[in-house]
Amino acid sequence: MINKQLLNPGSIAVIGGSENIHKPGGKILRNLIDGQFEGELYVVNPRAFAIEGAIYHESISQLPPVDLAILAIPARLCPSATRELARTKNTRAFIVISAGFSEESPAGALLEKELLDIVNEFDACLIGPNCIGVLTSHHHSLFTSPIPELDPSGCDFISGSGATAVFIMESGIPKGLKFSSVFSVGNSAQTGVEEILQYMDEHYEPGISSPIKLLYMESIRDPDKLLHHASSLIRQGCKIAAIKSGSSDAGSRAATSHTGALASPDLAVEALFRKAGIVRCHSREELTTIASIFTLKEPKGKRIAIITHAGGPAVMLTDALTKGGLEVPLISGREAEKLKSKLLPGASVSNPIDLLATGTAEQLGLVIDSCENVFEDIDAMMVIFGSPGLVEVYDAYEVLHEKMSLCQKPIFPILPSMITARDEVQYFLSKGHVNFPDEVSIGSAMVKVMNTPKPAPEIIVTENVNIPSVRGLIQKCSSGYQEPEFVQKLLKAASIPWFRRK
Amino acid sequence: MINKQLLNPGSIAVIGGSENIHKPGGKILRNLIDGQFEGELYVVNPRAFAIEGAIYHESISQLPPVDLAILAIPARLCPSATRELARTKNTRAFIVISAGFSEESPAGALLEKELLDIVNEFDACLIGPNCIGVLTSHHHSLFTSPIPELDPSGCDFISGSGATAVFIMESGIPKGLKFSSVFSVGNSAQTGVEEILQYMDEHYEPGISSPIKLLYMESIRDPDKLLHHASSLIRQGCKIAAIKSGSSDAGSRAATSHTGALASPDLAVEALFRKAGIVRCHSREELTTIASIFTLKEPKGKRIAIITHAGGPAVMLTDALTKGGLEVPLISGREAEKLKSKLLPGASVSNPIDLLATGTAEQLGLVIDSCENVFEDIDAMMVIFGSPGLVEVYDAYEVLHEKMSLCQKPIFPILPSMITARDEVQYFLSKGHVNFPDEVSIGSAMVKVMNTPKPAPEIIVTENVNIPSVRGLIQKCSSGYQEPEFVQKLLKAASIPWFRRK
Repeated sequence: MINKQLLNPGSIAVIGGSENIHKPGGKILRNLIDGQFEGELYVVNPRAFAIEGAIYHESISQLPPVDLAILAIPARLCPSATRELARTKNTRAFIVISAGFSEESPAGALLEKELLDIVNEFDACLIGPNCIGVLTSHHHSLFTSPIPELDPSGCDFISGSGATAVFIMESGIPKGLKFSSVFSVGNSAQTGVEEILQYMDEHYEPGISSPIKLLYMESIRDPDKLLHHASSLIRQGCKIAAIKSGSSDAGSRAATSHTGALASPDLAVEALFRKAGIVRCHSREELTTIASIFTLKEPKGKRIAIITHAGGPAVMLTDALTKGGLEVPLISGREAEKLKSKLLPGASVSNPIDLLATGTAEQLGLVIDSCENVFEDIDAMMVIFGSPGLVEVYDAYEVLHEKMSLCQKPIFPILPSMITARDEVQYFLSKGHVNFPDEVSIGSAMVKVMNTPKPAPEIIVTENVNIPSVRGLIQKCSSGYQEPEFVQKLLKAASIPWFRRK
Repeated sequence: MINKQLLNPGSIAVIGGSENIHKPGGKILRNLIDGQFEGELYVVNPRAFAIEGAIYHESISQLPPVDLAILAIPARLCPSATRELARTKNTRAFIVISAGFSEESPAGALLEKELLDIVNEFDACLIGPNCIGVLTSHHHSLFTSPIPELDPSGCDFISGSGATAVFIMESGIPKGLKFSSVFSVGNSAQTGVEEILQYMDEHYEPGISSPIKLLYMESIRDPDKLLHHASSLIRQGCKIAAIKSGSSDAGSRAATSHTGALASPDLAVEALFRKAGIVRCHSREELTTIASIFTLKEPKGKRIAIITHAGGPAVMLTDALTKGGLEVPLISGREAEKLKSKLLPGASVSNPIDLLATGTAEQLGLVIDSCENVFEDIDAMMVIFGSPGLVEVYDAYEVLHEKMSLCQKPIFPILPSMITARDEVQYFLSKGHVNFPDEVSIGSAMVKVMNTPKPAPEIIVTENVNIPSVRGLIQKCSSGYQEPEFVQKLLKAASIPWFRRK
């Protein structure tokens, strides 16, 4: 369960916190202080030390009441500390970053069960154990780096693996990706990915809650819950992208060893994601690229204009988009010729629209305006603009920034010169934008996004289903594998088409 | 044609060079000076200026003999300048960076033909026009940034598009990729990708020439030449990766507009690459990832050990490798238990081998040693080691560096913490290594490399071919499309199996 004490606590105590930022307890305290937590911040450690920004206590008994406790103490000490906090300090939210529970040994699993029973007894929230923590705009209760830029419209990110969450942020930050919250569920003793998603669904406020949800999972413990809440969030206007790893046999073995994940048949995962409308990703790069796409307007159709000052990347992008069923329609006619006359000799407007390497910021603006207002067969623009190092490209990025604010059609910026135009790209990102440094990565990601269906309706369609007949068949059958004849009868009764092999 | 004057000139004149680094002529002069060209460097410009590192002349007539001329003057002036240089200065190599030739207009195409006729008349080499230049260890005749680190064992890179070459370098440099040479062929008036590859093949010196060739192409003008020299280079020990873009219909249209590429049926390109043994890439990221793989030892087989301190990336990598037919074999038995006893509680050795987040550099070394010496079912190691920000990871990267030098089995470093462990990753790269920041990108790239066949034998097999019958059929047929009946007869005569539709 998720509660207010976890999300927006008035007070936090770090049990086992210290001044040593090379240890999880010290680092999480440092991140809380640097993150300017506005409530009361306490630290408990039998060894006395002074730290600016937190109030020191020698033991839990000395604490005043606290909403949220972060446990960074040995696993064996966690149950008793939790009980004391819940009973005497009215603590109703716990983040247990300590390891040494079910992920380590049968004895650890018993400790984890004990911990779980205590929090449940007090109707409290438990995140972890064996997690990196929770990051919200209210409190930075993570013991890792980097801490991404927080923004209410950034991604809500729930991860079944702590280190993977860290590396996903490493992949997203250089693209300009911002986060609204990060939840690392660790061993998910009480609260797993599905439960946090449920909370986000049940408390979703359009225009206030972030509309982007990212998930990393190695197992799906409750497929029905995931399907229901993911679909519901998407129907409310959210976009969800997720990695479910461990899809191969060896990967499944690896996942079992890592987070104790039970194997889910990959076809079932694939079907669940499609039914829910979740965009399925297979790598950190893909997840953060798709998350970046989610931050921009959704194209109304599949027809993309590619605007570029370099031919090659536009050709590769065209290949990637059209192979995936999107269109890069030919642009021609009187208006196209009119636009062409305003560009450099040798420029092309047939789509990709190639300004040439010496194309100017002003010409870029003209082309974007034409795609926005004149060329009706265009649903979205992808703009490739780097620098071969002759001149600075601030002016082009300023135009891109302005047009992205003004245009109704979405514009996807592909700025490849991460070395030569590093300062200009940083300037562009500082205006709140994302960047896609590789044109084929965004092309393939866009294909995936556009080809993911909307959530399937939850209403069960019983038209043409002979319900008494189906019920009769089911009642007669024994458990286990069924004979083909039985299955055929069942399909026929349910009017599900099937093919007889000739 | 390629000659010594192009590759290793004793003297270079930049015609149209200036002190203005915001213009191609000024930037290429600057790059030549910064690249410490050791021969005589001249610059010709009717407007006088002084620049340290180059000798100024007002006109070509004032120059002494020069080996290589770089033309950065308007297209219409190029033919006469070329003739004067070839005739009076014995210049036998020309790099024409000027645009305004066949890529721009029919009039430009005539100029290009005139230029070509002149260089051919003098048996000289022409690179371009409309290119960014040539980069070798001897001279940095490129007008773009960034200039990558040059190394004799780095990549030889030939590009049919200048800006794309720039962006491919942008993608490779952060991975630690080094280059031996870069050739931008522009309009390929005389010398195209195939001709440069031919030169590299005919002058290949094992142990001296770079064994890595990268190509970017939008058209294949001479498939036979490409096939022959690519296969030959690979048989001599080279590895070749290439992008041939414009593979979709719309992409092909884009390529035609960009470099005047003629459409090559994509199936034919695919077949040619497989026959030659070229690894086909579809993006800059993929090309530079595969190039980075090429810089490391080649695995003797398909069995990979994944060594990690973070479970999630290892699971995703396992999925990527095994879906592509590589193996992540289970490691078990007495030796595995012995290794496990030296790791932290909760660590796993079953492959992926998970040291846990708190695993030490020393443990990393022990695991690598076991994979090298003890576990015989392992052909290569992939090591995932990032940082959640608690401690510096120099010691782990030092171990990785040492083991990579000592081990017979190849080790692929996956260091994902490009922000948090930026300094450590830079330190690692500074030792001459490459890095793969995303585990699935290297996984998919590795699959592609391992699944690319060796070059097909060039011997034509005529066993079971009824040569007189084939010859008779061919002689009787008219040009153009043939009737199915004719094709069937031909296939039968050549003993090529085919299927009759029932």
